[in-house]
Amino acid sequence: MTFSVPTAEQRLLLRHIAKVHDLIGDERFPGLADDLIEAIVEGSAAFAEGEFAPLLRIGDDPGPRWSDGKVIMPGGFRAAYAGFIESGWGTIAAPAAYGGLGLPFSLATLVLETLSAANLGFAAGPMLTAGAVEAIETHGSLEQKARWLPKLVSGEWSGTMNLTEPQAGSDVGALRTLATPAGDGRYRIKGQKIFISFGEHDLTENIIHLVLARTPGAPAGSKGISLFIVPRQRMDTAGNPASTNDVHCVSIEHKLGLHASPTCVMSYGDNDDCLGELLGEENGGLRAMFTMMNNARINVGNQGVQVAERARQRALAYARDRVQSPRADRSSGAEPVAIIGHPDVRRMVLRMNALTQAARGLLYYAAGQIDRTVLGDARAQARADLLTPLVKSYGSDVGCEVSALGVQIHGGMGYIEETGAAQHYRDACIMPIYEGTNGIQAADLVGRKLVVDGGAGLASLVAEIRSDNLNSSTLSALADAVEDVAGWMIDAPVNDRLAGSYPFMSMVSVLTAGWLMARQAQLVKNTGDSPDFIAGKLAAARFYLDCIVPEALGLRSAAQSGAALLYRVTDEALLA
Amino acid sequence: MTFSVPTAEQRLLLRHIAKVHDLIGDERFPGLADDLIEAIVEGSAAFAEGEFAPLLRIGDDPGPRWSDGKVIMPGGFRAAYAGFIESGWGTIAAPAAYGGLGLPFSLATLVLETLSAANLGFAAGPMLTAGAVEAIETHGSLEQKARWLPKLVSGEWSGTMNLTEPQAGSDVGALRTLATPAGDGRYRIKGQKIFISFGEHDLTENIIHLVLARTPGAPAGSKGISLFIVPRQRMDTAGNPASTNDVHCVSIEHKLGLHASPTCVMSYGDNDDCLGELLGEENGGLRAMFTMMNNARINVGNQGVQVAERARQRALAYARDRVQSPRADRSSGAEPVAIIGHPDVRRMVLRMNALTQAARGLLYYAAGQIDRTVLGDARAQARADLLTPLVKSYGSDVGCEVSALGVQIHGGMGYIEETGAAQHYRDACIMPIYEGTNGIQAADLVGRKLVVDGGAGLASLVAEIRSDNLNSSTLSALADAVEDVAGWMIDAPVNDRLAGSYPFMSMVSVLTAGWLMARQAQLVKNTGDSPDFIAGKLAAARFYLDCIVPEALGLRSAAQSGAALLYRVTDEALLA
Repeated sequence: MTFSVPTAEQRLLLRHIAKVHDLIGDERFPGLADDLIEAIVEGSAAFAEGEFAPLLRIGDDPGPRWSDGKVIMPGGFRAAYAGFIESGWGTIAAPAAYGGLGLPFSLATLVLETLSAANLGFAAGPMLTAGAVEAIETHGSLEQKARWLPKLVSGEWSGTMNLTEPQAGSDVGALRTLATPAGDGRYRIKGQKIFISFGEHDLTENIIHLVLARTPGAPAGSKGISLFIVPRQRMDTAGNPASTNDVHCVSIEHKLGLHASPTCVMSYGDNDDCLGELLGEENGGLRAMFTMMNNARINVGNQGVQVAERARQRALAYARDRVQSPRADRSSGAEPVAIIGHPDVRRMVLRMNALTQAARGLLYYAAGQIDRTVLGDARAQARADLLTPLVKSYGSDVGCEVSALGVQIHGGMGYIEETGAAQHYRDACIMPIYEGTNGIQAADLVGRKLVVDGGAGLASLVAEIRSDNLNSSTLSALADAVEDVAGWMIDAPVNDRLAGSYPFMSMVSVLTAGWLMARQAQLVKNTGDSPDFIAGKLAAARFYLDCIVPEALGLRSAAQSGAALLYRVTDEALLA
Repeated sequence: MTFSVPTAEQRLLLRHIAKVHDLIGDERFPGLADDLIEAIVEGSAAFAEGEFAPLLRIGDDPGPRWSDGKVIMPGGFRAAYAGFIESGWGTIAAPAAYGGLGLPFSLATLVLETLSAANLGFAAGPMLTAGAVEAIETHGSLEQKARWLPKLVSGEWSGTMNLTEPQAGSDVGALRTLATPAGDGRYRIKGQKIFISFGEHDLTENIIHLVLARTPGAPAGSKGISLFIVPRQRMDTAGNPASTNDVHCVSIEHKLGLHASPTCVMSYGDNDDCLGELLGEENGGLRAMFTMMNNARINVGNQGVQVAERARQRALAYARDRVQSPRADRSSGAEPVAIIGHPDVRRMVLRMNALTQAARGLLYYAAGQIDRTVLGDARAQARADLLTPLVKSYGSDVGCEVSALGVQIHGGMGYIEETGAAQHYRDACIMPIYEGTNGIQAADLVGRKLVVDGGAGLASLVAEIRSDNLNSSTLSALADAVEDVAGWMIDAPVNDRLAGSYPFMSMVSVLTAGWLMARQAQLVKNTGDSPDFIAGKLAAARFYLDCIVPEALGLRSAAQSGAALLYRVTDEALLA
């Protein structure tokens, strides 16, 4: 199947929802210009379609192979990655001082969307490298930045993030990896980490691991965690890889999906010779990690949009191609028609389009707010904080639902791996889980983001939605419901808040995404886009407001159901 | 993980929802007795837990292997299947004249639930054999019944159903396989069939294929289809396998899940020497097929319950075992607790329980109605007809949702295949598709079942629900909504009906399942069940009525959104 990047949609969102063009001329983004934006949209699309997209299947099957501590990527990946470095697609938002373009996050969002929709697993590598760049840029010394950033920015080296240990998943504070001073300013790292994406591979000459560990005598829990830079290849004084560090990939996981991204079990210091350097302050690791985590969560929401887009395109192509049965209204006589002509298949197509566009709108809106936090806009910061759990959870939930619809549209063929629909369904399933499960996003929303300012941040979002005169009764009703539930939540005990957190989060996401869909439907009439694009946008927005927004109203009871419903029954009775 | 059949729940449903005990003493079920029912519940559970459940993983990986036309089942399957024959678990509802027990369908439903929850893919074989028995019993001559039924009933032979061809999926009428008179009363079959479950395997000495094909000069479309019995081994006059028929398994599919059930591409008559006999009337194949299809659809709904039950048990065991983070309300101090203690995980557990129980209640209720159709009860027949698309679609949708929640509860571990949660997620995904996609079930509901009697059948169901004094405001509101939408549907053009068919179907399913949950909550107080079982049932029912029924109210807008929403946009614009 040919994959085609939705550039018209991306342009609309960049200009009118992320409003990146409004930043042109700002001294903080000196390189930003209209033609550069257009070159990035066009160039990344051409690269993704030509180089990354064709490797989708081989990345899944056979996928990467572990052999004696090495991970061999599938055929074609090395060449495509070399093209990635050459084209500089990793440099978009990276600091200009170290080889980056220093452009707004919304453009990095676009490039990630484009590359990753073409090949989700492959693009996970550069996504993690961008996180490592961010961490070192924010928390590193000048010397560290000079040493590590240039080749991470260019993509010649890749980066990883090492948090999880078998006993320390959602509760990072439970980790046990040790970092003992080596006497020369460096630390000896010892411990095992699991679920390390691209922990080992053969695409780059070095891999820079960022590793959370405890120094001797550190406080218990999350207050005693420090972050370390642990390169696979140690460097000589000239900055070139010298000797190999004592870090090993013990195995790669046999996962449900996302096979092209090797998930490694990493062992540090088996021979007590794994050296790393402290990044940021001792015991400041959790804070450093959270710096990265916010954008990482946005990026996972982005992944949801990507897998939805790819699944959507594949299903639509099939639905237009597959001929089966005449129309029930006999408008085709006895002639069978392409299944996209049958009402319930068409409903699924509209639903895929509406959900994908809604999640994408939410993503670009959040990215635009993040761009403005860089400019020191406190209101944008509060908005971005509020939006982050929404983008992560809604994007990932949409990715799962749309990829499931994609399988369904394919009928029996969707269940056959060679068709490709099932791969998206498998790939999507990790997104609600990693970078903080969606349950943790919901807890973040009702436990922090909602209450930190007494509900003012959410109230200001709802007020802005109301003031937009969108003329949608469903959206108004949902705004009322969100306000009511939020008011109830703020006064409710923490257990009651948490009990309803997930349905409440879904309501807020649909309200915000529905608002952005309605806005797009208003403004698309004047953007000079093609008639087909305009018609597709209007149809998706109408479907979203008429069918999907009312569903979110149905979540209100669950959002306010309270904790007693969950706790008046014992664990034993739940198992009986 | 230890799998444990939910026998307390099954007993409750058999007695109070399927009401199978009310049939004791009826001359149509001469063998039916209290202690026999109990022996079946206990015996099938013990067999399933001991023999089928341990083979779950090996059935998935490596699964069956194709080699030179043969399909070799994984180690242990032959012995377990021999135990299945010996215990007679395939004989429950089969005709007494041919070695069956002639018991009500609700008991076959129970045995299928039990075996299949233990090993979904494995049990698909016997499920198909039961369908073949049903077809031959209903449409065969006395001679055919005598020849084919005894060994199919015992399980010594297995049966298959051959409908699909590459161009003929949902539209069975488009099939092209030919059946030409051979001159001796038999037919020469020629054609290729796809998606044939257990089309080839090494568990039985013969495989009896039921094959849909066209005779020369047959009318076009579904009116020109006939059904044929095509044995893999032809039989001699003594009724023993003699020579091998010209039918071959060309390959087995590489599927997303359900690996233990080999899905075969079957080629008939490559050497013009494939002989079969007509079953039922020439050109009566579609009707014959539909005889089987109704129960087959109920059985797929049953599969949804099974995969949900297995996924639920696995997730609950993990949630009680996995310790991570203290409670947010600090009730555990700084001590981490099992994640089942965290509100959002507990919400998912309650949701899994409530959905699984609701789908199971709907299943047993339908099975009980089917039992009464056998007794010639026209009202039960109408009710069973109405319930069939609900059971199939709701069961399969619940299977998908609950298995997805199961992965989510496992966190990152859920994405690792060895954990087992992902297998359920993969296995469940075919259920909304086969035996008529859920979209086709929805079309059946609004295109036939709803309108055949001007809405009287649905109205009578809703009236019965209302008359039950269940004291649930959410259920009352949903009953109102279902009635309103149904009234609108009956007068609406076919396209409008179909456009809203899926959300409408979901509303009716949740209303009916919610009613049955509320009834169970009332009656469980007096059944003498264990306090844990009663508390679990009450909690699940409360959750269903408080949280899930209101969600179905949110579907009303989509159910009445009409076809214009879908058709005012062109195919090209949907792709733009």
